[in-house]
Amino acid sequence: MEHTMGADNQIETWQEVTLVYNSALKQINTKLEVLNDEFQHVHQYNPIEHIKSRIKTPESIVKKLKRHGYESDIENMVRYVNDIAGIRVICSFTSDIYRIAEMIRLQNDIHVVTVKDYIRNPKPSGYKSYHMLVTVPVFLSDRTVEVKVEIQIRTVAMDFWASLEHKIKYKFEGNAPEHVKNELVECSRMVSELDQRMQELNEEIKGFAMEA
Amino acid sequence: MEHTMGADNQIETWQEVTLVYNSALKQINTKLEVLNDEFQHVHQYNPIEHIKSRIKTPESIVKKLKRHGYESDIENMVRYVNDIAGIRVICSFTSDIYRIAEMIRLQNDIHVVTVKDYIRNPKPSGYKSYHMLVTVPVFLSDRTVEVKVEIQIRTVAMDFWASLEHKIKYKFEGNAPEHVKNELVECSRMVSELDQRMQELNEEIKGFAMEA
Amino acid sequence: MEHTMGADNQIETWQEVTLVYNSALKQINTKLEVLNDEFQHVHQYNPIEHIKSRIKTPESIVKKLKRHGYESDIENMVRYVNDIAGIRVICSFTSDIYRIAEMIRLQNDIHVVTVKDYIRNPKPSGYKSYHMLVTVPVFLSDRTVEVKVEIQIRTVAMDFWASLEHKIKYKFEGNAPEHVKNELVECSRMVSELDQRMQELNEEIKGFAMEA
Amino acid sequence: MEHTMGADNQIETWQEVTLVYNSALKQINTKLEVLNDEFQHVHQYNPIEHIKSRIKTPESIVKKLKRHGYESDIENMVRYVNDIAGIRVICSFTSDIYRIAEMIRLQNDIHVVTVKDYIRNPKPSGYKSYHMLVTVPVFLSDRTVEVKVEIQIRTVAMDFWASLEHKIKYKFEGNAPEHVKNELVECSRMVSELDQRMQELNEEIKGFAMEA
Repeated sequence: MEHTMGADNQIETWQEVTLVYNSALKQINTKLEVLNDEFQHVHQYNPIEHIKSRIKTPESIVKKLKRHGYESDIENMVRYVNDIAGIRVICSFTSDIYRIAEMIRLQNDIHVVTVKDYIRNPKPSGYKSYHMLVTVPVFLSDRTVEVKVEIQIRTVAMDFWASLEHKIKYKFEGNAPEHVKNELVECSRMVSELDQRMQELNEEIKGFAMEA
Repeated sequence: MEHTMGADNQIETWQEVTLVYNSALKQINTKLEVLNDEFQHVHQYNPIEHIKSRIKTPESIVKKLKRHGYESDIENMVRYVNDIAGIRVICSFTSDIYRIAEMIRLQNDIHVVTVKDYIRNPKPSGYKSYHMLVTVPVFLSDRTVEVKVEIQIRTVAMDFWASLEHKIKYKFEGNAPEHVKNELVECSRMVSELDQRMQELNEEIKGFAMEA
Repeated sequence: MEHTMGADNQIETWQEVTLVYNSALKQINTKLEVLNDEFQHVHQYNPIEHIKSRIKTPESIVKKLKRHGYESDIENMVRYVNDIAGIRVICSFTSDIYRIAEMIRLQNDIHVVTVKDYIRNPKPSGYKSYHMLVTVPVFLSDRTVEVKVEIQIRTVAMDFWASLEHKIKYKFEGNAPEHVKNELVECSRMVSELDQRMQELNEEIKGFAMEA
Repeated sequence: MEHTMGADNQIETWQEVTLVYNSALKQINTKLEVLNDEFQHVHQYNPIEHIKSRIKTPESIVKKLKRHGYESDIENMVRYVNDIAGIRVICSFTSDIYRIAEMIRLQNDIHVVTVKDYIRNPKPSGYKSYHMLVTVPVFLSDRTVEVKVEIQIRTVAMDFWASLEHKIKYKFEGNAPEHVKNELVECSRMVSELDQRMQELNEEIKGFAMEA
């Protein structure tokens, strides 16, 4: 019988957390590779530029639990920290993001918990990305556990911006000077305009292909 | 709704065959990596030495169909050729083979079609290996197909022997001189004895660990 | 004794071309990984976002030789086609490009044949990238051959632009409609502005770090 | 100017040790891949079954220095511990081992420091393997360092034996019961006989190919 990791998850050590969440990342990664291969077969085109994944460090998990007022134990980690396993999918065009998200949604062994569309509703900082929190079954030798993975889908330009913003946030511990914040918002606006014009150009030449 | 690849599998080109069977190999590979990681976590020991996988070439698929009197079309490939996708798992000890096989059998998204235990019942040539024919779901963008994969599980010594035997079979087109065949059988017997004595030694020192 | 691949290179088949150029790509790739690791160690920062490499297809090599009026034989391939082996290095910032290029230049087993700086001097199409043609020694079992590799270094934004431009060039066989060409030039201008403002922001926060 | 890592190596932290020795492993690995590809091209045959590499843990480096009466500092590590970077090459046949060793020896950027042939002169325990201590140039951004790497070359059967022997040595801290030691020596003898008979069979069928 499958059961969602929670109070009764029998995960007792940090090593087990690492094992189970890493396995979940591997499975999501394989699913994305399969979809990318299929997409390329059908459309002669790779929607996925590249994929990065990471397990959150124990330090930042503990920090996050503390910030929300929870004790730092394994049970609380698994229950309250949704991004222990994170995977980032970088696409060429915004339209690819929604296509990939839809393909993930349709897989019947994946359960979509929440979706945050920071592309249609960017954060005040200018941050844009499509976030899905999903669970995926991980098949261990004696049981199947449903494990949470945060999938972030972005264009290359959004990812470029987000890397710099992350660095700035980290450096100023959230209190960047006003002109730095403003410049970031301005750059984010340029990213959107570039993404939009490049996508329009891409759509236009697709049209040409069909006429020919 | 899931459906097994068969008459209605909608696989129409060789490219699609490659895509779907490669995806199945990737998924089985990920499952094996997860099991190996777990096994190492629990037993401080990697049962899997390494893994190789391959897609059968169109030439040998056509040859196999012809040998069995079938037309060479995609439908017959998918229906009658069970080893289009093959994965080989190399273990240290014979006991690991049965452990890995059991772990695969217990996964509830895998269906075991047939098992051939050429370890307990070696071929007359001396060939030893554990074969499982399974199906695994492959999640495509618009459907889930159940794809057949042949899993061969062997010790390093069995694998070493099988590589040489394969080379000999290929070179003599099945008609190796009698003394070559006899020497192969003799080497196979040595492989078994070596595997058995090494495993007994391994079991014995495990006992020591428990006493200490 | 080392000798440059040329008239006496003893490369006689397409298979040998593939072997030798692939080996050169592997060696350059290893060198770049080592530099990236070192850079990260010293500056806590990966200058290289990712790396892609490819061997030119026989078809495009033949096409290129024909375009320049040469016979299609192995000797002419090795002598006149400089981008049989190509490697693309994607960086975050323009300043990283020049740092990577400088590091490659300083390696005493690499010989830099030519440099084309399409960042300071973009092509009329708007194309921007830093190209180095180098030779690297490939150690075969019985001799060392100096093999040509084209290294293209770009920012993520330049790479995004170049992918779309390549697709358009290919689709219209070099004769894209005027408004498509103009829009590409315009997007290239935006890429440069974005890269510049992002880099300035990055430089500015580095300054902050030193004051703190 | 190149210089061997030693008193003046300017390696000051464990992180730098890891960086430099890992880079050396990557370069040796690339060299071996190139040789394997070439060998396959010329002989339609992979002499290298697989490759494993590892950096010695700080704990075992310190232990080794202590055993030899040296202070545990970075300078002594680099000077006296020859197997900080180790790479293991697993071949099918004993003859492949000597071929690979010869190919490495001929590369003019590699310097062979010492060779220990535990195949012709096995250890009393039964241990068989071919060890080469080499130095390879690692190209850093501002200098080239010659880094020591221990290369161990073995057959699959020798490697199987060595894994079990290592486990036993570790478990009994060097003092295994007499009958365990004896059984290991006996198994080592079987490994040699199996390797020899398999190689003879392999040589014999090569002859057949030439006659045909």
